[in-house]
Amino acid sequence: MSISMQFPDGSVRGFNEGVTAMDVAKSISEGLARNVLAARVNGKVVDLSRPLSHDASIEFLKFDDADGKSTFWHSTAHLMAEAIEAMFPGVKFWVGPPVDNGFYYDIDLGDRKLTEEDLGKLEKRMTELARQKNVYERKEISKADAIQYFTDKNDEYKLDLLQNLADGEITLYSQGNFTDLCRGPHIPHTGFIKAIKLTNIAGAYWKGDEKNKMLTRVYGVSFPSQKELDEYVALLEEAKKRDHRKLGKELSIYTMDDDVGPGLIMWLPNGTIIIEELEKLAKETEEDAGYHRVVTPHIAKESMYVTSGHLPYYKDSMYPPMQLDGETYYLRSMNCPHHHKVFAALPKSYRDLPYRIAEYGTVYRYEQSGELFGLMRVRCLHMNDAHIYCTRDQFETEFRAVNDMYLKYFKIFGVDKYVMRLSLHSPDKLGIKYVDEPELWKETEEMVRQVLINSNIPYIEVQDEAAFYGPKIDVQIYSVIGREFTLATNQVDFAQGSRFKLSYTTADNSTDTPLIIHRAPLGTHERFIGFLLEHYAGRLPLWLSPVQVKVLPISDKVHDYAEAVEVAMRKAGIRCQLDDRQEKIGRKIRDAELQKIPVMLVLGEKEAVDGMLSLRRHGVEGSESVKTEDLIAALRQEIDNRL
Amino acid sequence: MSISMQFPDGSVRGFNEGVTAMDVAKSISEGLARNVLAARVNGKVVDLSRPLSHDASIEFLKFDDADGKSTFWHSTAHLMAEAIEAMFPGVKFWVGPPVDNGFYYDIDLGDRKLTEEDLGKLEKRMTELARQKNVYERKEISKADAIQYFTDKNDEYKLDLLQNLADGEITLYSQGNFTDLCRGPHIPHTGFIKAIKLTNIAGAYWKGDEKNKMLTRVYGVSFPSQKELDEYVALLEEAKKRDHRKLGKELSIYTMDDDVGPGLIMWLPNGTIIIEELEKLAKETEEDAGYHRVVTPHIAKESMYVTSGHLPYYKDSMYPPMQLDGETYYLRSMNCPHHHKVFAALPKSYRDLPYRIAEYGTVYRYEQSGELFGLMRVRCLHMNDAHIYCTRDQFETEFRAVNDMYLKYFKIFGVDKYVMRLSLHSPDKLGIKYVDEPELWKETEEMVRQVLINSNIPYIEVQDEAAFYGPKIDVQIYSVIGREFTLATNQVDFAQGSRFKLSYTTADNSTDTPLIIHRAPLGTHERFIGFLLEHYAGRLPLWLSPVQVKVLPISDKVHDYAEAVEVAMRKAGIRCQLDDRQEKIGRKIRDAELQKIPVMLVLGEKEAVDGMLSLRRHGVEGSESVKTEDLIAALRQEIDNRL
Repeated sequence: MSISMQFPDGSVRGFNEGVTAMDVAKSISEGLARNVLAARVNGKVVDLSRPLSHDASIEFLKFDDADGKSTFWHSTAHLMAEAIEAMFPGVKFWVGPPVDNGFYYDIDLGDRKLTEEDLGKLEKRMTELARQKNVYERKEISKADAIQYFTDKNDEYKLDLLQNLADGEITLYSQGNFTDLCRGPHIPHTGFIKAIKLTNIAGAYWKGDEKNKMLTRVYGVSFPSQKELDEYVALLEEAKKRDHRKLGKELSIYTMDDDVGPGLIMWLPNGTIIIEELEKLAKETEEDAGYHRVVTPHIAKESMYVTSGHLPYYKDSMYPPMQLDGETYYLRSMNCPHHHKVFAALPKSYRDLPYRIAEYGTVYRYEQSGELFGLMRVRCLHMNDAHIYCTRDQFETEFRAVNDMYLKYFKIFGVDKYVMRLSLHSPDKLGIKYVDEPELWKETEEMVRQVLINSNIPYIEVQDEAAFYGPKIDVQIYSVIGREFTLATNQVDFAQGSRFKLSYTTADNSTDTPLIIHRAPLGTHERFIGFLLEHYAGRLPLWLSPVQVKVLPISDKVHDYAEAVEVAMRKAGIRCQLDDRQEKIGRKIRDAELQKIPVMLVLGEKEAVDGMLSLRRHGVEGSESVKTEDLIAALRQEIDNRL
Repeated sequence: MSISMQFPDGSVRGFNEGVTAMDVAKSISEGLARNVLAARVNGKVVDLSRPLSHDASIEFLKFDDADGKSTFWHSTAHLMAEAIEAMFPGVKFWVGPPVDNGFYYDIDLGDRKLTEEDLGKLEKRMTELARQKNVYERKEISKADAIQYFTDKNDEYKLDLLQNLADGEITLYSQGNFTDLCRGPHIPHTGFIKAIKLTNIAGAYWKGDEKNKMLTRVYGVSFPSQKELDEYVALLEEAKKRDHRKLGKELSIYTMDDDVGPGLIMWLPNGTIIIEELEKLAKETEEDAGYHRVVTPHIAKESMYVTSGHLPYYKDSMYPPMQLDGETYYLRSMNCPHHHKVFAALPKSYRDLPYRIAEYGTVYRYEQSGELFGLMRVRCLHMNDAHIYCTRDQFETEFRAVNDMYLKYFKIFGVDKYVMRLSLHSPDKLGIKYVDEPELWKETEEMVRQVLINSNIPYIEVQDEAAFYGPKIDVQIYSVIGREFTLATNQVDFAQGSRFKLSYTTADNSTDTPLIIHRAPLGTHERFIGFLLEHYAGRLPLWLSPVQVKVLPISDKVHDYAEAVEVAMRKAGIRCQLDDRQEKIGRKIRDAELQKIPVMLVLGEKEAVDGMLSLRRHGVEGSESVKTEDLIAALRQEIDNRL
């Protein structure tokens, strides 16, 4: 009997029933077959060796695909277990899943301890086993047989796992001399695993419960080639150097304090300069784009958040309430309700639309303390927020203008790689996670999709990640070292306009409810500055640098000249500091380099006599001789054009 | 026997025992005796007729003195009671105190009602009685006799008051045909009261309790001359026109909303422009003065406010706590603790001092809902805050520099009249309202006093109004119509430095605690903008005006020209709007005048042909013909110099 397979490009081909995904891959090309790791059949990831018995859609997964990668790492976890069992007979295994950057396995080593040295030996053994190209074999087994098998092995961990598995759904996977209880899928054989690095040993309580036994967790990562592993290690090194927490401390950008509370950033003077430059950019850009600015308080009564729907949809992310004069107040987690009240404060007509109001609004969100992370996950956020109230006819133009603003910013900050994720609702969560308006969801999702298609912006669609009031575009950008950041959102809101009874008088003197666009192209100061620190490795462009120029006199003899240069720079609005410490010039230059000051001016007696400056740029070898007024003109241009 | 009197200028003279304050006044000059209303003897205000029996300091109080004024108004309340009793025999009186702007008396009229018409009759009767120059006579009376007297009068109100008075401290005051239970003091006779206006009739529950009987409260005000009353009435009229709540609405400056909460201002686009201009002024001024800027969150843990002393000293003015992760958080009511944490974030040496950090910080303060008033009394305040950490040697220079900054701002805003109030602690409230450091209080109060004396700034001293951590200068300014506003404070803080364990390394490598100056020359946006609206009667100077220029084309024919003018203005950074409605030019001008737009440009066909503008300035008669580029240059200069 024949079955038909539909490929991602929409084409369909017929195959004999019982054909495997690997057979299908081979029928396309030998090259594909050499690189494919698993297949997605009707949306489900399966082994390439599984026989196919029905018509289906099929997609081949390679290491570049997220699911291909996690299958690869999961199979490497089994390989590691095989090596460990060979080195330490009698050890027992709990679970060994793939994670974001590799895999781990939790192991009961009995009385034995694993050392860093052992990791090297294990890597070697794994590499040997991988070269044997041992096939990952899948075997279905009855629950009774499985229990018998692991009882014979005296393996209480797998017996524990079996309790929660239903008969008929239980499988074992074996490769070489190792067999594991596992639902799969796996890659075809170990030969795909060409490069392995075991990265860490940690303790982990069984089932995460500190009353249980402490197991040994071994982390690792693996790749289809040594080159990819080398690149990954280099990236890790580079990311470590660019860690925004490290740079934030070294460059005195921000601080936190136990008495203030976790996740609550205090911006030091250097960080505040960056904030103010970013706000200046936003204000200029938004003024040109016809936005008004507003300033609103950070709290409101419960009734406001019941109206908006934040209560109950968003309650878990909000700070706890305050009781005052018999009323319940909340710290705001979003600026929108306050902005809606600003819209409603004065009567509006179609002539006032689109009405765009912006505020670098501060919001408070509750993140679990374990999830807080530097500037990336915080509890107080300064958001580049704005809301656009418009008619249905104006929607496309306004929504596109917002997307264009994103692209403008990407250019300024040298963001070459980005993806827009169109986040849609999930119909089964209407009334729970999403406002219960199935028709409006469909309509607005299609509107947003059309804008993206019409403006030729690359995008992907994801289910069940919309805001509770409408679909949104999450913008993901990549730093120069390729790390991904979810920056900001551009959202359409069909719900809050009517919830807040917002209205405008139409041209024919009736009333209508405006559509609302929520947008924040620069995201929050916290996350965006965190991104910038990594992206620029702390070497911020001149216009963003807290100290733009450092004047470094070689000796006290040129102090007056140095001070005159400093004054001239400051007068030109350039952030300039004079290093008049009693230190050797080498030390002064080194300190300025460490502080990543973009422009250093070394001044000796020759420069003072000639009225010149010896100019060094951060990270650039050598120096050149320039006149003060010429340098000021050049720097001003660089700053004014945000180069 | 002879007693000696010390006068405010420090001079001392001898008098016979039993001399009255009036005798002493007469011995100085007849002119003084004609104007003096009461005396302050050893700090206590007394009747001029009281015999003096001990050495004492003495000061004469006229209508210009706050205590002179309230004595005058208190005596007028008695005069009103006399007139009411004459007109409505058998009425009973509760209490009749002086208040901020006059006096009132609460009266039980029985079944009778008082009408607006009655007020005119009462005023007339009071004037007649005043002309009789009836003396206010003081009589000491035993409690038993007093009870007998009011029992005979069947006056349950005065009998109620008597319950709380101690025998030996009870006095009656009589003038003309009226006698009242009263502790005084009073003016010599009714002849001083030359001009009277009864301003309002209201209901007031006895003792403020709504379960009690409703009494009739009559408000009034009085002056020593008709001229002063006329000026007062004119001021009231003018203040009504300049009411910041009225102007705030007319000019779309701010709004409030029930769902947000009372006292929580939302700044509309026009108000936000004023805010941003004020912040720009502050940032420029502070940058020139060597301040750094910081940004800190609005909440902190309880532990921070226990350290600072806000808990318990300031608890009643704070918002209620939030419980999170087992910790108690508070919305901040002051920015200082966060700034101290910024100071402490990095090690400091004497070379870093004075360390000045500024933030337009938002704070939340609990004011009783009955005390909330427009922009003047609010619950969310944006404060022009900064803290200066300095050595003891640097204190005078820094504190003077802050005072100089005040004077600079006063000049910009045309504030000609101001007073600095040196607010001192009260020794009997150490440990209750003030930190318990008696020596440090004395020392720092003297330091601040010396700065004021050395810099020749006029100031007055007031007891028991210091901050809990140190003495302060409250700055009171007067609007052009003479109304007083308490703007801001300049405070010295000897307590929080050590409470927060702040320290710096001295030149000789030991450590010391910095002194802290708290300062906010522009006060809060809320109060300062409220003041500006009244001060300028809404006609803000060009640089502060939300819309600086309005282009008013006479017809559609000149639309392109009008648009070109608008674009040229905007390009020059001038806030310009085009009124392209289909309205007559008269209407357009009237609307622009109502909006108090400083510059109006009327454009007709003649102007379009000549390439000229017909310029009208708000409130100025007539117009003049100017070129666009000349006007732009002139306006830019006016704006840049904040004229």
